[in-house]
Amino acid sequence: MFTLDPAFVATSHPLADLPLCTARLQDDGRYSWIVLIPKRAGARELEDLSSDDRTQLMAEILAAGHAVRAVGEALGRAVEKLNIGALGNVTPQLHIHVVGRRSDDPAWPGPVWGHSPGVAYRTDALALGLGAAQKAFAARLTVLS
Amino acid sequence: MFTLDPAFVATSHPLADLPLCTARLQDDGRYSWIVLIPKRAGARELEDLSSDDRTQLMAEILAAGHAVRAVGEALGRAVEKLNIGALGNVTPQLHIHVVGRRSDDPAWPGPVWGHSPGVAYRTDALALGLGAAQKAFAARLTVLS
Repeated sequence: MFTLDPAFVATSHPLADLPLCTARLQDDGRYSWIVLIPKRAGARELEDLSSDDRTQLMAEILAAGHAVRAVGEALGRAVEKLNIGALGNVTPQLHIHVVGRRSDDPAWPGPVWGHSPGVAYRTDALALGLGAAQKAFAARLTVLS
Repeated sequence: MFTLDPAFVATSHPLADLPLCTARLQDDGRYSWIVLIPKRAGARELEDLSSDDRTQLMAEILAAGHAVRAVGEALGRAVEKLNIGALGNVTPQLHIHVVGRRSDDPAWPGPVWGHSPGVAYRTDALALGLGAAQKAFAARLTVLS
């Protein structure tokens, strides 16, 4: 039975329930950043997913890229480059980061992971970002909720 | 027409020619680290690949994970966690890092990207690592050369 690691609850907001993953918006208003967590109990590596799940994961990563771009557009900071990462050194539950990067963001050109503590969204920007990302997901995937 | 960015030539060794990607062993003897570069001219993001190419890429990422583990075994330092990343902030040609991590490696638990300059392999370790990785790829994929 899949249960979300509490680490994600502390650092991100619920965004969309996709066929494979639960998608969350990272609570760091400096970036357009989505985290995808496959709803598969015990999965830590891509190889722990079935082949069908991996195909679906690729589709959800692509959709998350579009959603990240939509967040950037909604907040007036167009995404220049996508960064995708599956690390899990600190939180082992399998998760994939899809991060919109800009050459004026604080960590550029280095990775965002481990760079600096997140800066929480303001309420109005959070609502804009969540709305834009949800619309982008719904345009490309079956969204369960 | 695909041509490999010279940045990869300077930092890695040719490892295997796969159906989609050219695979290279990162010249950093502190990690078991493979870089996959899809042989598609102009690709910068996953969305620049066709759907069939993305399916093949997932298969090659999985195989690279096995190859990275094989490098670790051959060099007496078993991989504990895989880190997979597609960044491209510095070198825009689409490429995917598959890195074997250990809790005693220099960058743990942070990302390897941007952590510190690579430490070149010794000749004997390089030969062992390349051989182990090539054998692991050949066991799972059609290797062109």
